[in-house]
Amino acid sequence: MTGCPTYLSAGEDAEFRKTISAADIAAFAEISGDHDPVHVDADFAARTAFGRIIAHGAVVMGLLSTTASMISRRSVERGSPGTPVSAGYDRIRFTRPVFAGDALTARYVVEEVDDARGRTRARVEVVNGEGETCLVGTHILAWVTAPG
Amino acid sequence: MTGCPTYLSAGEDAEFRKTISAADIAAFAEISGDHDPVHVDADFAARTAFGRIIAHGAVVMGLLSTTASMISRRSVERGSPGTPVSAGYDRIRFTRPVFAGDALTARYVVEEVDDARGRTRARVEVVNGEGETCLVGTHILAWVTAPG
Repeated sequence: MTGCPTYLSAGEDAEFRKTISAADIAAFAEISGDHDPVHVDADFAARTAFGRIIAHGAVVMGLLSTTASMISRRSVERGSPGTPVSAGYDRIRFTRPVFAGDALTARYVVEEVDDARGRTRARVEVVNGEGETCLVGTHILAWVTAPG
Repeated sequence: MTGCPTYLSAGEDAEFRKTISAADIAAFAEISGDHDPVHVDADFAARTAFGRIIAHGAVVMGLLSTTASMISRRSVERGSPGTPVSAGYDRIRFTRPVFAGDALTARYVVEEVDDARGRTRARVEVVNGEGETCLVGTHILAWVTAPG
């Protein structure tokens, strides 16, 4: 990974809304292999501290993947010669459980742009329909250029 | 979230293997809303620095969800009165792209156990079929006890 102009600015943001369904959670259990009863067994989940099925954390993070792609697509459309790719996450915290039927809003705000390295850092969060924060953290995009 | 005996020890580990398919990546695009062409359009992806479709980072993290559930299930089976839940991730880095057909191995190693807080920290990693590391980071489990 080498330096690359990102054509992004600090303060740019993206937002994506989606209501997480029980079918989404069940489908992710198939993809990931995580069929833990807190995610797939309503009777079991009713006896836990949460009282009902909760979404896998990676399902909630998936909405941030969409916002990161919205931002990276802008970079490409503005002429960046690199391919923006998710380089990682810092200090992700799941601050509240997400249940089937929750109307989530994912927000992505670019906070640092480093064109010399071809890299941006963004504040990310996901809130539910009651405005309660379910996830907070930082996401890193890196611009990769083709070899040769 | 209150203190809770976890019945886990530093050094305990779990491993889960899965080959990521193109269908897994397409299904995750539906769940997450992230239909970015690097994930779903083979012709587009062929013109990027990677040369072919790559998996969403959250798909790779999903395999860690499975290993975390393997560990948390042990805690419950050993008699922990709490519900273990994913509290977050620290310094996740996607060190290499994951392609459809990659035979992945996710590894989870408990490194710190804090029964007074009801919390564990674990080193996590995902390697591909060639033994190359695709993801490294830290995962945090927290034990939640029912109110009242």
